[in-house]
Amino acid sequence: MGPATVQAMVAVEFWFEFASTYSYPAAVRIGEVARAAGCAVVWRPFLLGPIFKQQGWEDSPFNLYPAKGRYMWRDLERVCAKADLPFVRPSVFPRNGLRAARVATAASDDWIEAFVGRVYRANFAEDRDISDPDVLTSCLEGLVPQPRRTLEEAGDHAVKQRLRGATEAAIGLGIFGAPTCVVHGELFWGNDRIEAAIEAARSR
Amino acid sequence: MGPATVQAMVAVEFWFEFASTYSYPAAVRIGEVARAAGCAVVWRPFLLGPIFKQQGWEDSPFNLYPAKGRYMWRDLERVCAKADLPFVRPSVFPRNGLRAARVATAASDDWIEAFVGRVYRANFAEDRDISDPDVLTSCLEGLVPQPRRTLEEAGDHAVKQRLRGATEAAIGLGIFGAPTCVVHGELFWGNDRIEAAIEAARSR
Repeated sequence: MGPATVQAMVAVEFWFEFASTYSYPAAVRIGEVARAAGCAVVWRPFLLGPIFKQQGWEDSPFNLYPAKGRYMWRDLERVCAKADLPFVRPSVFPRNGLRAARVATAASDDWIEAFVGRVYRANFAEDRDISDPDVLTSCLEGLVPQPRRTLEEAGDHAVKQRLRGATEAAIGLGIFGAPTCVVHGELFWGNDRIEAAIEAARSR
Repeated sequence: MGPATVQAMVAVEFWFEFASTYSYPAAVRIGEVARAAGCAVVWRPFLLGPIFKQQGWEDSPFNLYPAKGRYMWRDLERVCAKADLPFVRPSVFPRNGLRAARVATAASDDWIEAFVGRVYRANFAEDRDISDPDVLTSCLEGLVPQPRRTLEEAGDHAVKQRLRGATEAAIGLGIFGAPTCVVHGELFWGNDRIEAAIEAARSR
C-alpha cells in the first residue's frame, strides 16, 4: 500500500480497568457504537490501583465512601437494564484484574474485543473470579489456539513492563478513573461519555 | 377542591447546592425538561459542605484531586456548549453559596426557579461573587417587591434551621453530591441523570 492510499483512521482510545464497574457496560458496547460511526477502538488496558494509591486511596472509592458506593450499584443496575445487559452484583469487589489486564496487554487486535467482553461478563454478570486462571482460560476458549499457553505468555516480563508503561502513560494523560476515552489527548470519562468521544473523533 | 379531584402530581425533587458545578446546567434546564414531560420540580436547596466534611474533605474534591478537577472544568465547558449555555470558569471555586441557599429555602414556588437560574448564571457564566448581598439583590430584582427585605428575611433563625434540616434530610436520603434528583426515595445523581429521573417519576 503506497503512501497515497494510507488514510488516518478515525479512532478512539478506550482506557479500561477490569475491576472498574462502569467499564463493564462501556467495554461491551463501545465496539458496536464505534463501528456504527465508522470509528476504530484502540483498546488500552491499564491499572487503576497505582492511580488510586497516588490519591491516597488503598481501596475503591466506592468502598471508601459507602453512600457513593450504594448509589453506584443501583445506578449500574439501571444502566445495564437500559442497555439490555445482564448484571449480577459481584460478591467480591473490587476483583483483582491484574492477570486479565496482562492478557489484554498481550492480546492481538482480532480477539481483544471478544476477550475483554467475556472477562467483564464473568465479573459483573456471572460473579466469577477473574483473577482465577481457569476463568481466564475459559474466556480465551475459541479465541486463541492454546488458551493455557496464551495465559502463561501474558506473565512474561515484557508484558508486565508494557502494562506498567500503560499505567504510567494513563497518569501522564491525566486519567483518574475508568473507563476513559481519549481523543487527540482530550479525555472523556465514564460510560456516559462514549458517544461524545466518538463524536469528537469524527469531527476532527 | 374535593378529594375526588385531587390528583397526585408527578414530581421530581431536585437537590442542589449553589457552589456545585454540574448543578449549573442541571438547574437551568430541569424546569423546561420537566414541564415538557408533564412533571413538577420540587426545588430542594441544601449544603454540600457538611456532607463533604463527613467524608473527610475540607474542600471541593475537584480541588483536592487536581486531575479530576482539570477534567471537570473541561467537561463542564463541553456540557454547557452542547446545552447552549454561557460558561465562564469562576475565578474563585467553590464560592460560598450559604446566603443564596437561605434565600432559596425561603423562596416561594412562583419565583424560585428564576432566582436559582440567575444565581447559577452569576457564578458560572458571569464570574460574580454569589455570597455578596448586592449580587443576590440583583438576582432578586423583579421577582419580589423588595429584594433587600427578602434577603434580610432569609437570615431569620427559622430559615437557617430549615436549611440545616434540609441538609440533614439529604444525608438521610444517602445524597453525597449535587445535583441529585430524588424520585420516591431513589437517587439520580448528576446533570446526566435528569432525564432518567423524570422518566422514573412518570413511570410510577
